[in-house]
Amino acid sequence: MKKEIGNDPSAFLQTAVLLAKDFAKDAAERDKIGGTAKKQRDAIRESGLLTILIPTEYGGEGQPWSVVLRIVRELAKADAALAHLYGYHFLHLTNPHVEGSEKQKKYYYTQSAKNNWFWGNSYNPIEPTLVGRKKGNQFIINGYNTFSTGAQDSDRLLISWVENPGDKNAYVGVIPTNRAGITVNDDWDGMGQRQTDSGSVTFENVVVEADEIFDDSASNEVPFTTFDAIISQIVLANVFVGSAEGALAEAREYTLKKSRPWFMSDYEKAIDDPFIQRRYGDFWIDMQAAVQLVEHAGKKVDEAWAKDRNLTEEERGETIIFTGAANAFGTKVALDLTSSMFEVMGARSATRKNNFDRFWRNVRTHSLHNPIEYKRKNIGHWVLTGEYPIPSGYS
Amino acid sequence: MKKEIGNDPSAFLQTAVLLAKDFAKDAAERDKIGGTAKKQRDAIRESGLLTILIPTEYGGEGQPWSVVLRIVRELAKADAALAHLYGYHFLHLTNPHVEGSEKQKKYYYTQSAKNNWFWGNSYNPIEPTLVGRKKGNQFIINGYNTFSTGAQDSDRLLISWVENPGDKNAYVGVIPTNRAGITVNDDWDGMGQRQTDSGSVTFENVVVEADEIFDDSASNEVPFTTFDAIISQIVLANVFVGSAEGALAEAREYTLKKSRPWFMSDYEKAIDDPFIQRRYGDFWIDMQAAVQLVEHAGKKVDEAWAKDRNLTEEERGETIIFTGAANAFGTKVALDLTSSMFEVMGARSATRKNNFDRFWRNVRTHSLHNPIEYKRKNIGHWVLTGEYPIPSGYS
Amino acid sequence: MKKEIGNDPSAFLQTAVLLAKDFAKDAAERDKIGGTAKKQRDAIRESGLLTILIPTEYGGEGQPWSVVLRIVRELAKADAALAHLYGYHFLHLTNPHVEGSEKQKKYYYTQSAKNNWFWGNSYNPIEPTLVGRKKGNQFIINGYNTFSTGAQDSDRLLISWVENPGDKNAYVGVIPTNRAGITVNDDWDGMGQRQTDSGSVTFENVVVEADEIFDDSASNEVPFTTFDAIISQIVLANVFVGSAEGALAEAREYTLKKSRPWFMSDYEKAIDDPFIQRRYGDFWIDMQAAVQLVEHAGKKVDEAWAKDRNLTEEERGETIIFTGAANAFGTKVALDLTSSMFEVMGARSATRKNNFDRFWRNVRTHSLHNPIEYKRKNIGHWVLTGEYPIPSGYS
Amino acid sequence: MKKEIGNDPSAFLQTAVLLAKDFAKDAAERDKIGGTAKKQRDAIRESGLLTILIPTEYGGEGQPWSVVLRIVRELAKADAALAHLYGYHFLHLTNPHVEGSEKQKKYYYTQSAKNNWFWGNSYNPIEPTLVGRKKGNQFIINGYNTFSTGAQDSDRLLISWVENPGDKNAYVGVIPTNRAGITVNDDWDGMGQRQTDSGSVTFENVVVEADEIFDDSASNEVPFTTFDAIISQIVLANVFVGSAEGALAEAREYTLKKSRPWFMSDYEKAIDDPFIQRRYGDFWIDMQAAVQLVEHAGKKVDEAWAKDRNLTEEERGETIIFTGAANAFGTKVALDLTSSMFEVMGARSATRKNNFDRFWRNVRTHSLHNPIEYKRKNIGHWVLTGEYPIPSGYS
Repeated sequence: MKKEIGNDPSAFLQTAVLLAKDFAKDAAERDKIGGTAKKQRDAIRESGLLTILIPTEYGGEGQPWSVVLRIVRELAKADAALAHLYGYHFLHLTNPHVEGSEKQKKYYYTQSAKNNWFWGNSYNPIEPTLVGRKKGNQFIINGYNTFSTGAQDSDRLLISWVENPGDKNAYVGVIPTNRAGITVNDDWDGMGQRQTDSGSVTFENVVVEADEIFDDSASNEVPFTTFDAIISQIVLANVFVGSAEGALAEAREYTLKKSRPWFMSDYEKAIDDPFIQRRYGDFWIDMQAAVQLVEHAGKKVDEAWAKDRNLTEEERGETIIFTGAANAFGTKVALDLTSSMFEVMGARSATRKNNFDRFWRNVRTHSLHNPIEYKRKNIGHWVLTGEYPIPSGYS
Repeated sequence: MKKEIGNDPSAFLQTAVLLAKDFAKDAAERDKIGGTAKKQRDAIRESGLLTILIPTEYGGEGQPWSVVLRIVRELAKADAALAHLYGYHFLHLTNPHVEGSEKQKKYYYTQSAKNNWFWGNSYNPIEPTLVGRKKGNQFIINGYNTFSTGAQDSDRLLISWVENPGDKNAYVGVIPTNRAGITVNDDWDGMGQRQTDSGSVTFENVVVEADEIFDDSASNEVPFTTFDAIISQIVLANVFVGSAEGALAEAREYTLKKSRPWFMSDYEKAIDDPFIQRRYGDFWIDMQAAVQLVEHAGKKVDEAWAKDRNLTEEERGETIIFTGAANAFGTKVALDLTSSMFEVMGARSATRKNNFDRFWRNVRTHSLHNPIEYKRKNIGHWVLTGEYPIPSGYS
Repeated sequence: MKKEIGNDPSAFLQTAVLLAKDFAKDAAERDKIGGTAKKQRDAIRESGLLTILIPTEYGGEGQPWSVVLRIVRELAKADAALAHLYGYHFLHLTNPHVEGSEKQKKYYYTQSAKNNWFWGNSYNPIEPTLVGRKKGNQFIINGYNTFSTGAQDSDRLLISWVENPGDKNAYVGVIPTNRAGITVNDDWDGMGQRQTDSGSVTFENVVVEADEIFDDSASNEVPFTTFDAIISQIVLANVFVGSAEGALAEAREYTLKKSRPWFMSDYEKAIDDPFIQRRYGDFWIDMQAAVQLVEHAGKKVDEAWAKDRNLTEEERGETIIFTGAANAFGTKVALDLTSSMFEVMGARSATRKNNFDRFWRNVRTHSLHNPIEYKRKNIGHWVLTGEYPIPSGYS
Repeated sequence: MKKEIGNDPSAFLQTAVLLAKDFAKDAAERDKIGGTAKKQRDAIRESGLLTILIPTEYGGEGQPWSVVLRIVRELAKADAALAHLYGYHFLHLTNPHVEGSEKQKKYYYTQSAKNNWFWGNSYNPIEPTLVGRKKGNQFIINGYNTFSTGAQDSDRLLISWVENPGDKNAYVGVIPTNRAGITVNDDWDGMGQRQTDSGSVTFENVVVEADEIFDDSASNEVPFTTFDAIISQIVLANVFVGSAEGALAEAREYTLKKSRPWFMSDYEKAIDDPFIQRRYGDFWIDMQAAVQLVEHAGKKVDEAWAKDRNLTEEERGETIIFTGAANAFGTKVALDLTSSMFEVMGARSATRKNNFDRFWRNVRTHSLHNPIEYKRKNIGHWVLTGEYPIPSGYS
């Protein structure tokens, strides 16, 4: 079913543009319904875009992160939830590479390319809620885990657990989502990003085989093993900036087609009002600064990723500074634009039917997992001392 | 059914506090449902608060606008839609006084006090859509009018119409909402202020009697006849500021009871985090500036209202400057607070269940009817030239 | 020489308006020169305004703080340095009342009224640098103290010292500025508030008599003894807001008389440009919110001051919340306005000759003594916990 | 005297870093003095950096604009006035290329490379004040022209004049600054950018020869002839962003070496205060967004410049959008940072001696020539309509 898509970044982007166009048709409606965007997830599966980051030697298209991120932004213009799921798919898919053994990296890349897996997670190494009991080489997992983004309808599930409640170090592994004992609950109740399926998963005596557990015996001393924190940040940064771009485009469309000039203005058409023009300019300028910052951070990610296990602490630090900055700045710009966009559309735009508030709700919801105050603090600490922040699951 | 409430402002406020407490119980739920808040509207009816502005000589409690506005703010803490309806009730109820004859003023005050009417509107003198055909002393009205705030479940309806489509000057009058030919449509679809019943009303051969038409033959030269524009502004200003106050209170409650410290913070409780404290301080300071500005504007309104038909252009101008400033500033502060409040509550607060986004949606929705850019422009023009803006239906 | 000024607040304000008008003539020039504004200080002396807060029973005019603060704001419109000196004069003059014995309060009020003293300070109880050696009942003071605002040309000097370097508790007292051993250095080098004489004072074996030392034996347990921190905050808040008002007035004058429309604008006069009008409106609205907040805080100060030694911790707390809020908000508004005012005046306004940058330099300089981040934090802590901040020399 | 500097961009930048280091030593002092920075201008002359943009075929180093702009930013970190002069040197030097004939382009590039000319202007085609009387092939110029940036100590002077007062179309030409009849007045009185020599020039019967007048007979229909407007914008954008970078670096140095923690903070060192760290992070993030935006705009300028006379209206439009955005955004960020930097340094930083206010004064002064409100409007108009703004002398 998966499309053959060759190896051309501009073709990938073109594919993403078409997907986005399709998603846009009922994005407002689907936001109201929530739940799993099964049809759209399948369209992503069929598009061929789920494998593009996988190195060619393992059957993928060997694209850098910047191409993935560009697609995340493109999808986010139409549907921030699907963009999020698409970006996080790669966050999870590369986890064996980042945290596992060479063999696991190879296995999961190859199988994912071959089977066109869509990855999700039920993963929280910082505040682990799943407990796994050892049984021979296996673990038997029980528990309940919230914020399991993309678990619904996924093919593989990135999970984390501890051996005993309160343990500091978590195990991380990958299992098929349809493994016995797993119940993905349809209980995501976010006020935004409503089709990210970020609900809970229940584990009842779920078996994890030995080779499904990441073997970090050799690797966990190198800076590269925290790369997932970097990816998480820059994926969300692109979701936010793409949301802002999409919001601006929708506002523009509305202003051109439907807005009426303010009755006290001297202009016949809303687009001739200098206040409306000025505001659009202001929106675009801030948004463009955010675009350039996420683009630059994306290049940093490409460079750092290419270093693989040779990535130094300093190189990692430099990257996390830029991804953190892009995330914080993108959040600020996207929140402002998605809240203010109504002012250039006018009172009649603010209906449930138009559902333009979904842009603000989307940005607002997923920008909270990662407080920008702490990002600012970490970056400021580095500005002052030269000490880089240590990436963490949420940094 | 209506409570006897005597004549004590602090007792009125206390009544409003109790009403607000009651409304708060299911405000989040009712926002999702939309439609008419019949039970709550009846509670307002029974509270006795619908007559407090009516002069004692006509059977009311003779309170100044500032007391009404204070109650609007109090109700808005819990439910901005009901606060809006309550404030606009007086906007409409005083319209015979502002635009009608002495006889009409007396009649409507007296009847409203006696019958405890709840007023709504289907009124739009700026872009009139209703057309009234003269038939003897009557008008026969036909047409369809949007944004008819508070029409549903109202006892009296303020309406406006023109004799011929395109006419510049509109007639204004009051009729019973249950008059034959009137259909109040349940079609308000705002993304916020969802229980303001601001939908449409259909008029089919609706009769308006001669004495229901405002007789402005004597009065329409005096500045006082535009007082409704002033009231509209200051009512909404108080809705916005009250919304901000309510949002802050809800956020505080959540932070105290449920927020967890950011995992990278050094604090055990969210309330000990200096960034969270700082943000609460910032919210409160801006909100307090808004409170003082609406309070001051409210006093100006009291003074101007007391002048009645002797109000000079300059006094009116001075008042509109302050109500406009309060409205613009209140909008800014309320938008910022209601969008940012999530940052001090954390990711888990952003659920549909909590429905905290209703604060932002409420402020966002009804702040659009009255672009703050033009308010700034009008005030700036006055700063530079000393020329006061002319109040209008939307100024 | 001191004018008889009777007892009428509006007459005091009128006197201040005249003083301000006079100060405005060469305020720009004097800012460049720096140093002591001897002539202007003498004009304040002669105006009669130095005694207005002194209770009538001690020979003063018995005005509340709000009248003093209103005058501070009026003077700050023209000259923020002189406004600061005038406000701080009362901060020091009331120190015997706040921290001393009943006898000292009476003595200093009476003598200050009689001799029309202008008070300054060389006072820093938080980081004391002066050391006093006990000799019988006297102290012999040595050392060097910076930021001695208003010391130059003062009649009385509020001072603080410790008995041993590093001591926690400081002594506070008042001495004649011309006492042997005191050298007031002309070394204030602030980038703003350049005529506040906030330089250093050198003490060489300066004698302080027993009765010049505040006798806090009876009083230091009551909340009232920290009232100086409240006054310091609200005086500066009024300096900031007055500076903003003055800056706006100067900008307006310039825009009306000299600004040319931007060549790409469609307007013949700068004042007709909607962007310029909008900005003036925005300035005025924010400034007005600040005005209302300082006014409200001033009333709180009056109420708290009237309680005298009966002031409860809660009443003090309530007051410090409002003075802190007024100070923080006033700072924000004044910084924005004084930096942005050039945008409505145009490129030709930004000359050394016009010296309009003094407004920003003034606000910027003295807003730093009292970080608004900590004010926000303290107020936010109170919002969350209900615990009031403890006033301190800088709070 | 001019250094041989080869052809390596990183070597140019290194040279600029050394120049900046030297300029930094007395930049604060020179700002106070104003006037011509003769020694520093000569250091620029000797550095070899005055010829780098000149194509190699004419004896220059053939660098793109982006290298020049990078150097402008580097110099601006230390001294925004010299950075401005350096950037504008190329604006003027390329004017024969942009507006003249092929022959003039060749002549001025070659001569400028050979003689290492430093260019200035006395140029104002929008509001021309100089009048030239035709005399044979010559013009005889008289008049007085303000804002003649870089005229003092320049070798060549770009000038503009009209034949009759009020004429719409101006002539443009180049003459030696020491031509008889020219008096460069030392009267620049800006409150910032004090060593840009942006004062006036008096012309008394100044002869302009025929070949010194730009011959635009062939070229003036092509979009390329307005390229100077693009350059002017992007040079200033880099001056603003470089100023912000320099201000941040100075603030950091001060915070590290001299700032004391706020006495109410719980930290021993200012750099440990989370509020101070947060603010530095915020500064850096915004600044970095500005850096990426000016960098991106610089690349656009390179691409457009390479098109030379084949530049299409659309390509020009795309470029002006980005240079305008970079300028507007750079202004906003730089104003905020240079005004707020004091908050992370503390009260003792705000002295005349430190003269840190020069950063704000510099940015504030030269950001006024080009109102960002109109930039926003123009960009917004393009966002809405797709119509590009027409570059103009100030756009």
